[in-house]
Amino acid sequence: MAASGKALRFVGVSGSLRKASTNTGLLRYAQTALAKEGVSLEMHDISGLPMFNQDLEPNAPDAVREFKEAVKSADGVIFACPEYNYGLSGALKNALDWGSRTPNCWDGKPAAVMGAGGGFGTKNAQYHLRGVCVFLNVHLMNKPEVCIKRFEKKGIFSDDGDLIEEEYQKRVDQLCASFIQFAKRSQ
Amino acid sequence: MAASGKALRFVGVSGSLRKASTNTGLLRYAQTALAKEGVSLEMHDISGLPMFNQDLEPNAPDAVREFKEAVKSADGVIFACPEYNYGLSGALKNALDWGSRTPNCWDGKPAAVMGAGGGFGTKNAQYHLRGVCVFLNVHLMNKPEVCIKRFEKKGIFSDDGDLIEEEYQKRVDQLCASFIQFAKRSQ
Amino acid sequence: MAASGKALRFVGVSGSLRKASTNTGLLRYAQTALAKEGVSLEMHDISGLPMFNQDLEPNAPDAVREFKEAVKSADGVIFACPEYNYGLSGALKNALDWGSRTPNCWDGKPAAVMGAGGGFGTKNAQYHLRGVCVFLNVHLMNKPEVCIKRFEKKGIFSDDGDLIEEEYQKRVDQLCASFIQFAKRSQ
Amino acid sequence: MAASGKALRFVGVSGSLRKASTNTGLLRYAQTALAKEGVSLEMHDISGLPMFNQDLEPNAPDAVREFKEAVKSADGVIFACPEYNYGLSGALKNALDWGSRTPNCWDGKPAAVMGAGGGFGTKNAQYHLRGVCVFLNVHLMNKPEVCIKRFEKKGIFSDDGDLIEEEYQKRVDQLCASFIQFAKRSQ
Repeated sequence: MAASGKALRFVGVSGSLRKASTNTGLLRYAQTALAKEGVSLEMHDISGLPMFNQDLEPNAPDAVREFKEAVKSADGVIFACPEYNYGLSGALKNALDWGSRTPNCWDGKPAAVMGAGGGFGTKNAQYHLRGVCVFLNVHLMNKPEVCIKRFEKKGIFSDDGDLIEEEYQKRVDQLCASFIQFAKRSQ
Repeated sequence: MAASGKALRFVGVSGSLRKASTNTGLLRYAQTALAKEGVSLEMHDISGLPMFNQDLEPNAPDAVREFKEAVKSADGVIFACPEYNYGLSGALKNALDWGSRTPNCWDGKPAAVMGAGGGFGTKNAQYHLRGVCVFLNVHLMNKPEVCIKRFEKKGIFSDDGDLIEEEYQKRVDQLCASFIQFAKRSQ
Repeated sequence: MAASGKALRFVGVSGSLRKASTNTGLLRYAQTALAKEGVSLEMHDISGLPMFNQDLEPNAPDAVREFKEAVKSADGVIFACPEYNYGLSGALKNALDWGSRTPNCWDGKPAAVMGAGGGFGTKNAQYHLRGVCVFLNVHLMNKPEVCIKRFEKKGIFSDDGDLIEEEYQKRVDQLCASFIQFAKRSQ
Repeated sequence: MAASGKALRFVGVSGSLRKASTNTGLLRYAQTALAKEGVSLEMHDISGLPMFNQDLEPNAPDAVREFKEAVKSADGVIFACPEYNYGLSGALKNALDWGSRTPNCWDGKPAAVMGAGGGFGTKNAQYHLRGVCVFLNVHLMNKPEVCIKRFEKKGIFSDDGDLIEEEYQKRVDQLCASFIQFAKRSQ
């Protein structure tokens, strides 16, 4: 329960758009884990946001307003952060940028990040995200870090991108438990 | 002249999509500066690339193929790199990512970067770009760094985004001169 | 006053060792600003720490123990972070590393950072520091960022490194005020 | 052979000071691998450099001058880059900083980096190093990246820090072979 007595409501943002994304799969697993604690995680699909262009702002599509409202009204954000070429996905960066436009919907928001990827488990992309969060004034939790090297073992994810290996599920469980406390302290 | 005896041909990629972008303006100025040395700079608009999604790859639009061919056939790339929230623009990152898909059109390509922005002159975004270029195996020139703090002085750019202040034009001139040598050595 | 009713006690760590350092000067100014709010800032000189070498650990000098105790017992840390060649000073990194050895004296500590330097106002070094703080589990405040470009104006600092320009003093005042609140919330 | 007809001479700099360092071990292995190609790698111990302090410069010890001359006269530098708390070791940063003082001994020098460490194989520290090299104008080779996760398998290194596992030796072999070509092209 939040300080106000209401149940916490988080929003989940996946930086990967493909259907069987393991990053989106991490959020699905977190959704189930959080539900056991009475906390909701609403997934917000960012594929409908146009590529940011300042000239579009006066007539930005509804998808932009809806995204910003979803973030603004949430008690916290969980990012699933894929790594593309040692950086953020363009899709995630684009969503961060749209949200930053006055009024900045990220301002003061507690957040957590996790990711699944190649040899560094999306660590490089997460570092870029942390730099961006300083500007956005997102309070990004330090630990536990969830950087899943998805090829270090077979069977971590199903073909549909679901997180099915227990050892790795526990890491997401721990992140969720820590983030509930982190978000409560921010209220 | 390139080692082959043919004139060098560069491609310019601006990470900002708005019409009056000062970053695109930097490339326009570079185009003129390079032309004086007999080097061409072809601007490649990246606004037509869809947001990267692996599921789209089998049926990627022509814009993707055309972009990759333009990069592949160039003797070098000049990036105009805006900074959004201490990071790359989603649009630029998206173009980098499309280009990286097998076969990676960036592999071994000489490149230079410049940018115009707020208090750090896009330095943070350029640092992210450098990290990405390691993975892509782009040979990104170290110096001169062109990080224009566009608000430190009035009249650096026109309202249309053209670089009109002589002191700053000289910095782009120097970058162009260095990059011609850098690209030749890579051949 | 801290939650416990006791006055807050911060420790200040300057990454520059020279006598007339402007970064150390920032801490001296902060000391005065904090004192007005009843908060103490004890400067801890790190020049006595040997260069870290794991082989030295069993017989580490007293300076190491004293440094770790000063950090451990403080309610928060303020870093004055010079930038050397786009990175942290070796001296500051060395102090961070000594402190990290089990038991990690930084764990869970609230912290703030400010710096004075060349064209980017130590922004690059501060970004490196932020990356390090994730591992150390330091809670580094996002804002306000104090990145003083010391050459953008004459007379920001005295020859002795004292911060004497009012406009810049206000930025440190704001950082101090924000950090008092930030450190209290961490208790 | 270098363009001049003389054999290439590299200098090796290890950022770890402990006797049984695996990073220093990587350089020892590279020394042997390079010798087979007629290239020498002289290890330069940086433990004798004092912590950088601008006030010391007028009377810097001989160790500083000797280090700068060793770098200056080499045809290239190979860094063995440990990762401490997601960053460079203070010792390595300190050596980089001493070398940067006018005249910058790193200017235009070809370099390569490799490292052995925890879960990310020193990737974070290497990224910091790359940022520093832009300022120093070191030409740091992109690939192959050697980021050895030393705990992912037993027996990669001996207790003395020697690289004894063949699969990993091959990665250093490849780095050495690439760096010989890279350094030659820089001449």
